[in-house]
Amino acid sequence: MAEGVIRLHGADNVVIALADLPKGAVVEGIALTGPVPRGHKIAARGIARGENVLRYGQIIGQAVEEIAAGAHVHSHNLGMAPHTDDYAIGAECRPLPSLQPLEFMGYHRADGQVGTRNYIGILTSVNCSGSVARFIAEAAEKDPVLNGMPNVDGIVPIVHQTGCGMSGTNEGYQTLMRTLKGYARNANFGGILLVGLGCEVMQVPDLVGQGRLRPDGNFRYMTIQGTGGTRATIAKALEILREMAEVASRVERRPAPVSKLIVGLQCGGSDGYSGITANPALGHASDLLVRMGGTTILSETPEIYGAEHLLTRRAVRPEVGERLIERIRWWEDYTARNDGEMDNNPSPGNKKGGLTTILEKSLGAVAKGGTAPLAAVYKFGEPIDTNGFVYMDSPGYDPCSVTGQIASGATMIVFTTGRGSVSGYKPSPCIKLATNSEMYARMAEDMDINCGDILTEGVSIEAKGEEILARIVEVASGKKTLSEELGFGGAEFVPWQIGAVM
Amino acid sequence: MAEGVIRLHGADNVVIALADLPKGAVVEGIALTGPVPRGHKIAARGIARGENVLRYGQIIGQAVEEIAAGAHVHSHNLGMAPHTDDYAIGAECRPLPSLQPLEFMGYHRADGQVGTRNYIGILTSVNCSGSVARFIAEAAEKDPVLNGMPNVDGIVPIVHQTGCGMSGTNEGYQTLMRTLKGYARNANFGGILLVGLGCEVMQVPDLVGQGRLRPDGNFRYMTIQGTGGTRATIAKALEILREMAEVASRVERRPAPVSKLIVGLQCGGSDGYSGITANPALGHASDLLVRMGGTTILSETPEIYGAEHLLTRRAVRPEVGERLIERIRWWEDYTARNDGEMDNNPSPGNKKGGLTTILEKSLGAVAKGGTAPLAAVYKFGEPIDTNGFVYMDSPGYDPCSVTGQIASGATMIVFTTGRGSVSGYKPSPCIKLATNSEMYARMAEDMDINCGDILTEGVSIEAKGEEILARIVEVASGKKTLSEELGFGGAEFVPWQIGAVM
Ligand SMILES: [Ca+2]
Ligand SMILES: [Ca+2]
Ligand SMILES: [Ca+2]
Ligand SMILES: [Ca+2]
Ligand SMILES: [Ca+2]
Repeated sequence: MAEGVIRLHGADNVVIALADLPKGAVVEGIALTGPVPRGHKIAARGIARGENVLRYGQIIGQAVEEIAAGAHVHSHNLGMAPHTDDYAIGAECRPLPSLQPLEFMGYHRADGQVGTRNYIGILTSVNCSGSVARFIAEAAEKDPVLNGMPNVDGIVPIVHQTGCGMSGTNEGYQTLMRTLKGYARNANFGGILLVGLGCEVMQVPDLVGQGRLRPDGNFRYMTIQGTGGTRATIAKALEILREMAEVASRVERRPAPVSKLIVGLQCGGSDGYSGITANPALGHASDLLVRMGGTTILSETPEIYGAEHLLTRRAVRPEVGERLIERIRWWEDYTARNDGEMDNNPSPGNKKGGLTTILEKSLGAVAKGGTAPLAAVYKFGEPIDTNGFVYMDSPGYDPCSVTGQIASGATMIVFTTGRGSVSGYKPSPCIKLATNSEMYARMAEDMDINCGDILTEGVSIEAKGEEILARIVEVASGKKTLSEELGFGGAEFVPWQIGAVM
Repeated sequence: MAEGVIRLHGADNVVIALADLPKGAVVEGIALTGPVPRGHKIAARGIARGENVLRYGQIIGQAVEEIAAGAHVHSHNLGMAPHTDDYAIGAECRPLPSLQPLEFMGYHRADGQVGTRNYIGILTSVNCSGSVARFIAEAAEKDPVLNGMPNVDGIVPIVHQTGCGMSGTNEGYQTLMRTLKGYARNANFGGILLVGLGCEVMQVPDLVGQGRLRPDGNFRYMTIQGTGGTRATIAKALEILREMAEVASRVERRPAPVSKLIVGLQCGGSDGYSGITANPALGHASDLLVRMGGTTILSETPEIYGAEHLLTRRAVRPEVGERLIERIRWWEDYTARNDGEMDNNPSPGNKKGGLTTILEKSLGAVAKGGTAPLAAVYKFGEPIDTNGFVYMDSPGYDPCSVTGQIASGATMIVFTTGRGSVSGYKPSPCIKLATNSEMYARMAEDMDINCGDILTEGVSIEAKGEEILARIVEVASGKKTLSEELGFGGAEFVPWQIGAVM
């Protein structure tokens, strides 16, 4: 920092210029062999022709010629070997040394999960019951019995735009069903009331199924048509909620190891700083949490496209790597049949900013997943049943990706943002990390942590990662995030809509 | 009715049994030649082999043999000639005699449109500004200045789930842009504040465009990122809203002919009664309104599929018919590329209930569009610039189809329902028509008009159509519908999402 560069990982053989640096400037004890623009890479030592170039501790390509210490590293001397089928599954799976887990104060559930919040959810099968779910929540806010429950964080309507006008069998239907069931089971809910209209494609009996949707049994359901209209549904729902809240409020926060945490990693409104401040800092926090036995979820498949073989190399087992490749092939088909294409190549603007290869660009997003082995790969909203660093397939679209992570079990979200996202995601608290100090200063009431000080104050990525982990533990124990204080989360349940609207 | 049958249109040569009728029962003075199940068709006079069979005054097929008066008409003696390319555009375009228009009390706008409500909308470009739009509306509810505006019906957040994670050029993007612009221009808004996040694909400057989005100029916009976060945006929005409400509140209800009304026709949660009670009654109301110079919109393409050549026959010009055929071809491609197919054939259950041909099934939905000439065909959300009976392409999914109609300019919705839909659609009031008296009795607090009395009380379809028109005029003049009284409309803005979520 003092030298105007940043090293993103101890193993890297390049550092990043934080300002336009002239020829002869001395960085890490080495004089630059030529001028290097801001955001671009500098060889931290001599790199042999064909040697891997490492950024974030990850391969971003190979030197296409001998590179001297202090030289500018970019398209003229850094290339990417063809890798289309070179997935080398597990080749770079290096378990991290374990750490004694920290503790948080959480809500222990019947199935062994531990929640960070204790909400009661009013889940909806279809848009057509969405307004009534909100009316119920509004009535509950004014209900003295419900307001007297000391351990319930609130009654949360979970409203969306789909659930009918769709096939009742295809992939879109299965994805929505997984998403709704996943919310019903999320450990941040102490109880779920499912409200349907009655005639929708996503039938309430199919959602409820044969088994118990929630292990604690604190689950009830009703349809507006079966109950006799809006007012009757609100009245009956209030009675049900009073019983459910009584049960939910018996649970109190008790100590749990952070190995019980499931944290969704996200970025949105990214900027040129995301990949050098907040994302690697979050990656360090992820590594620490994984070393303590916790679980972190990387997602947003369109943004890692082209660098998937770096994740397959971290896979703990062949099936894990193969499952990721299968998801990538699925996405190629999904975009092709929608007259689009997957393309995460650096644009001319990206290249001007210092990003040389598709790997390097995707690694800016992947950096928030740290360096731990890849323990499992899940579909959107599939229940997460493995500790460690895992992947859940999703679009890059923030509210949709977070919705999948919460359906998969995430009890907390940590979200890096450069331009400034202000959303929240009930029932799971969301910690916002600003990538730059300028935006943090402008939007401090929305940003939980400034990672811009990695550049402006010379804070190390490791120290920032520890700060993030400490905040994760505090928030898991009940401290409200800024988006919770502001009341966010009523609009951001966005199931992934796949297929035709009929 | 006294005879246990119903005639759906004066020109029909079949009537419908309202109960299981035995051989020899006398209907319309003719003895049945055999037993006829409830819901099935009876020849009201002798029908020659090859002669058209008419229901709703529309062709549902041809007699495949000589049919005696009083005979059961079904699959054994009613067939459908191949018609794939037999669109016969305009062949049955029969203008209806005009009627002196009734008047309503509406809000006259700068461009000559007349609204039935005077809301101020908080429109959102993306899901990521949805919660803030709601916070603004909540703050506005408590604002004494805004509450002192006598002629403003309320401040309505228009929140959705898309606007980013999408292509910025394709058909899905164009459709969303049309929808948002259409809401901004709807005559039921006296002013629009557009709130974006800042970094979304659906950019606020692109939405605002070069021209004036609203002819009255009562339009403002802002982004959360540009304004400096959540609290700053709420505070600034309140100031803007006070200025906008001052302008909007200057407009008072004044008389206007019903030729200024644009009414969206809808059905949802249909049952076996829809096609014999509420839909033909609404069709009669539509014909009356069209005869007075008004505009009605039929939609829900998957539900008219297979009967589109009956609409092309009503087309006023070749281009109108061709445009409908083009939409049908588009839908075939849309469903095929999403691994589905268009199929509106009667199911075994439909056939058991008395529906013989695909025409007859689709006509149950089309019946709500009456018999007037087809004046124009529009894409989803395209501005309606023609009076008369028009078609706007949409899915059958109720909230999505209504969203398109309102974006196209609908200032009122009339919605038939058999199972009991309880939704509402701000800014446009929605009149609910129950198709059967049993559901009406159960859900009377949600149903504006019972059309079940066509069967249970022998009310004629014509009388019920006049009752519906009278209610349309009352509601247009300010009478609240039941869904407005209950507060519906906050969850039902559902833009049609076409294409991949990225
Ligand atoms: Ca991202
Ligand atoms: Ca992104
Ligand atoms: Ca994202
Ligand atoms: Ca329908
Ligand atoms: Ca419908």
